[in-house]
Amino acid sequence: MPELRQNVATREWVIIATERAQRPDQFVDPRRTLTETRPRRVAECPFCPGNEEKAGQPTLEVSEGGHWQARVIANKFPALVEAVAPKHRFEGIERSLTGFGVHEVLVESPLHNVTTGLQTEAEVARTLRAFCERGRKLSHDERILLTIFFKNHGAGAGTSLEHPHCQMISLPVVPHHVRQRLQDAAAYYDEHGACVFCDMWHQELAAGARVIAEGKHSVAFVPYAAFSPFHTWIVPKRHMPVFSHAREDELEDVAAVLRTVLRKMYFGLRDPDFNFVVRTAPNHEDRSRTFHWYLSVVPRVTRTAGFEVGSGMFINTSLPEESARFLRDIKAP
Amino acid sequence: MPELRQNVATREWVIIATERAQRPDQFVDPRRTLTETRPRRVAECPFCPGNEEKAGQPTLEVSEGGHWQARVIANKFPALVEAVAPKHRFEGIERSLTGFGVHEVLVESPLHNVTTGLQTEAEVARTLRAFCERGRKLSHDERILLTIFFKNHGAGAGTSLEHPHCQMISLPVVPHHVRQRLQDAAAYYDEHGACVFCDMWHQELAAGARVIAEGKHSVAFVPYAAFSPFHTWIVPKRHMPVFSHAREDELEDVAAVLRTVLRKMYFGLRDPDFNFVVRTAPNHEDRSRTFHWYLSVVPRVTRTAGFEVGSGMFINTSLPEESARFLRDIKAP
Repeated sequence: MPELRQNVATREWVIIATERAQRPDQFVDPRRTLTETRPRRVAECPFCPGNEEKAGQPTLEVSEGGHWQARVIANKFPALVEAVAPKHRFEGIERSLTGFGVHEVLVESPLHNVTTGLQTEAEVARTLRAFCERGRKLSHDERILLTIFFKNHGAGAGTSLEHPHCQMISLPVVPHHVRQRLQDAAAYYDEHGACVFCDMWHQELAAGARVIAEGKHSVAFVPYAAFSPFHTWIVPKRHMPVFSHAREDELEDVAAVLRTVLRKMYFGLRDPDFNFVVRTAPNHEDRSRTFHWYLSVVPRVTRTAGFEVGSGMFINTSLPEESARFLRDIKAP
Repeated sequence: MPELRQNVATREWVIIATERAQRPDQFVDPRRTLTETRPRRVAECPFCPGNEEKAGQPTLEVSEGGHWQARVIANKFPALVEAVAPKHRFEGIERSLTGFGVHEVLVESPLHNVTTGLQTEAEVARTLRAFCERGRKLSHDERILLTIFFKNHGAGAGTSLEHPHCQMISLPVVPHHVRQRLQDAAAYYDEHGACVFCDMWHQELAAGARVIAEGKHSVAFVPYAAFSPFHTWIVPKRHMPVFSHAREDELEDVAAVLRTVLRKMYFGLRDPDFNFVVRTAPNHEDRSRTFHWYLSVVPRVTRTAGFEVGSGMFINTSLPEESARFLRDIKAP
């Protein structure tokens, strides 16, 4: 029998469609070329060592033994640009703002053929640390309200570039969707006197059925109302609204848990296309009692259709408890 | 220079990324197999004549000369089912509702190798009329709050079935996303004393730059803050919150305009994958002064990535005015 489930934090309903249910291994694409089988270095790759000049000056570089290990560079085809002042124009139904913002790429490694799950814990921690450092620096610019940190891996997740990289887009607006989530978290606080994300990770850990991994400072679980198969949240245990204010030991712990989750997906689902995104409160809401930063990992193993476009609701063809058990049981080498 | 634009009705911001801009013809896939080159009838197709028994009894059938021309049947793999009473269970972070609902398929034509844009105006009107008739009937069930009417065409739009068909899912909840849009429309009414959709079609028609087609009772335009290339709204001119209350002459006019838009997409973009969805107020809000039903057509010519997942904002790599001009100038045979 199908079931509707509501995510208590986002208030979004999802249909868990058991009549269409697929076993976890049915989401594996056997024809997929694994990232690790690619060359370590590709001459024409813009992110491989040797092509640094094309990318221009990095805004951040982490080096070791005279060689860079990770670097943050300007996006060659930026969605938003710094060289314009943010200026609103509201005329009738036409509401616009000049395209001010910052769009950067974080090259995670000099190696072409590693994806985040194949890196060491220290390397994944380096990525999160670089995100935080750039995020903090950009937050000093009062014109920037929020930075979206994300990764696209594979064509199905929106990238054609193979080299392991993440992106950051700093915005002069708070997106409607983000503002809505802040309001919904505040509404929960009003009703329950607690942060909904704090309540979630405590209850997920106590129930256990949807937990994938736990660290000292964070928990990874498939949400009760996961919108797609293997959709995973990694929630830090300490209440903290803004990602870039995380402590060093928390970042290291989240990085280790993220690596565990991505390794399980890599080996269990055969290197699926995926996105991960950091969900954070805007820069100026860094004292919020009601919002709590976290990471969301979305393997792209299904497609959305007209129902999702028309309703904003998702149909999930896997049971969250089964997705979680499958990932929990994967023993990544 | 890029630009941020806000849709005045949905309050969603979109980035119009001119640095990444693509010409309209760059979205055409030259390898695509056109729908019209397929056979008229496929023996194993569950929707082709001869296989009616497998589908079970239709809930609606339109016949002519002893042969059915369109039929509404139960979905073989329903997302929601009628055979269960809607029952909430709210326990801590677990909020669920039994999977009550109705999930039907509307077979648009006995012919396998036509898509909506290749049909006659009378055939497209038949589809909208059948939607309305089923929608009205289902609205008498007090447990159903809203029906989502939609079409998926092509694998990129979420269907593997080639035969021309639409779907309807009747829900026992108002999705969060829909409720939000109702609230945003009400907020606009409070500020401006007018329905935002009425204001939009009037201003779009006056400006002209984004208009694709106009009928006696409806207007098709690419919204000022279109979230993807060729994203099109078809708005009926008369204020009316609920789709299934539309008048016969309005339905015929919307059908003719929808057919024009889909034909232009078929010939101009080479039969792209697409979704269309009906946006309507819930059944019990049929006297709303602030919400207004319309159709949204979304060709699937680009993919979403981590930024969209994390922010709910879209990056549109085409200028809405250029998308509109391109479609306006297409002369469909």
